[in-house]
Amino acid sequence: MTTPGTLYLLPNTLGKTNGNATHPEEVLQIIRHLDVLIVENIQNATRFLQWVGDTVPEFKIEFYPLTKKTSDIDLLEYIKPLKKGKNAGVLSEAGLPAIADPGARLVELAHKYHIPVRPLVGPSSIFLALMGSGFNGQQFQFHGYLPMDDKACSQKIQELEGQSKRHDISQIFMETPYRNTSMITRILSQCKDDTRLCVACDLSLDSEEIISKPVDEWKKMQKHPDYDHSKWNKRPVIYLLYAR
Amino acid sequence: MTTPGTLYLLPNTLGKTNGNATHPEEVLQIIRHLDVLIVENIQNATRFLQWVGDTVPEFKIEFYPLTKKTSDIDLLEYIKPLKKGKNAGVLSEAGLPAIADPGARLVELAHKYHIPVRPLVGPSSIFLALMGSGFNGQQFQFHGYLPMDDKACSQKIQELEGQSKRHDISQIFMETPYRNTSMITRILSQCKDDTRLCVACDLSLDSEEIISKPVDEWKKMQKHPDYDHSKWNKRPVIYLLYAR
Repeated sequence: MTTPGTLYLLPNTLGKTNGNATHPEEVLQIIRHLDVLIVENIQNATRFLQWVGDTVPEFKIEFYPLTKKTSDIDLLEYIKPLKKGKNAGVLSEAGLPAIADPGARLVELAHKYHIPVRPLVGPSSIFLALMGSGFNGQQFQFHGYLPMDDKACSQKIQELEGQSKRHDISQIFMETPYRNTSMITRILSQCKDDTRLCVACDLSLDSEEIISKPVDEWKKMQKHPDYDHSKWNKRPVIYLLYAR
Repeated sequence: MTTPGTLYLLPNTLGKTNGNATHPEEVLQIIRHLDVLIVENIQNATRFLQWVGDTVPEFKIEFYPLTKKTSDIDLLEYIKPLKKGKNAGVLSEAGLPAIADPGARLVELAHKYHIPVRPLVGPSSIFLALMGSGFNGQQFQFHGYLPMDDKACSQKIQELEGQSKRHDISQIFMETPYRNTSMITRILSQCKDDTRLCVACDLSLDSEEIISKPVDEWKKMQKHPDYDHSKWNKRPVIYLLYAR
């Protein structure tokens, strides 16, 4: 019987960067020697391999596409080379695969077929934001994207604020970057003055910004002539709410 | 006015390791040049600095102790050197500070006194476990330690299983290492056959083991003569439950 390969879960960077504040050397070494890459976007993955300094000639790497919509039948195909002893890596467009990104179903299949799974250390905007917020890191919940509908979104924010206060948990969520301004406006207009809001933007990049303060102080800051709410627009933001 | 220093949130390793599968080069560089270290245990922190290859002579670094019990008055003292322009790092005993570890109150104070806060990339057993589980990474909750009392603990597990199924969330929690055997036994005796349990142990270390399967398959595995439940004892484990 062939010894199966390993399914490595590869961290991506969180945006364009020249240095390396995100990937440990052993992680880079593993990425440099993979046979198969399962990726969201082949072009971006190729660019990532250049950043990593891949030593395998590109034509020797097999690329398989992975999105939310990839069928289970296709995913089973991806398990085959692993069974034959090849090492594969899963890479999402930013941060960690299988966390707020595709990959979990493939990991589930790997476990089912006794393929060793090895998650590798790298940047997670969710965790960097939680650390940097100063909110409760002993109990927290991640909600992904809130509902798009106005009313449902407002209701959800109210619900999260209430749960945070009742159960002492930090609430973490995301928004599509072009709606950051309206999300912040919504939170400030809706949440209690002493509820704390953290906006963590461009994490691990040179332009990183983490602002963490009570809603009433956000409102004061908003009035300052130097402050412009729209600066958050089109930048990746993680939101955290914490009510005590 | 002096430009304030930065409060860096430093990742620690997740156990004894010779290589470096956990710390990016730029993170190591930052750690090598800090003036102040705020740490849970000075002896262990000194050992960590040796692993990092610190270039600042040890007697030039100021160490401040940080535990859950450190008073707010003491924490305010720790802000002073930062205000004077010194760079400080917070280090917990393993993994990331302020996440399932002390540090959050200090980060809160730093924000209050306009000290820049910079979380650095490193290993989090919670996130490595979530990635490696194959469970839902779009929505998840971390609960820290479950209640110690037998009855309350069983109730909590039942509650987590029910919430997971109703809201489609992955549930993540911990247990003190010497009680791992009894925690696994408890979960297997209590949860439904198709609820999935992931036990993620010694993450990022050579002895890493991630077992993720439905409860009924755990029970079958338990009957195998080669399997011994007690192997988990005294090893750091992250637990995940997921019911669909």
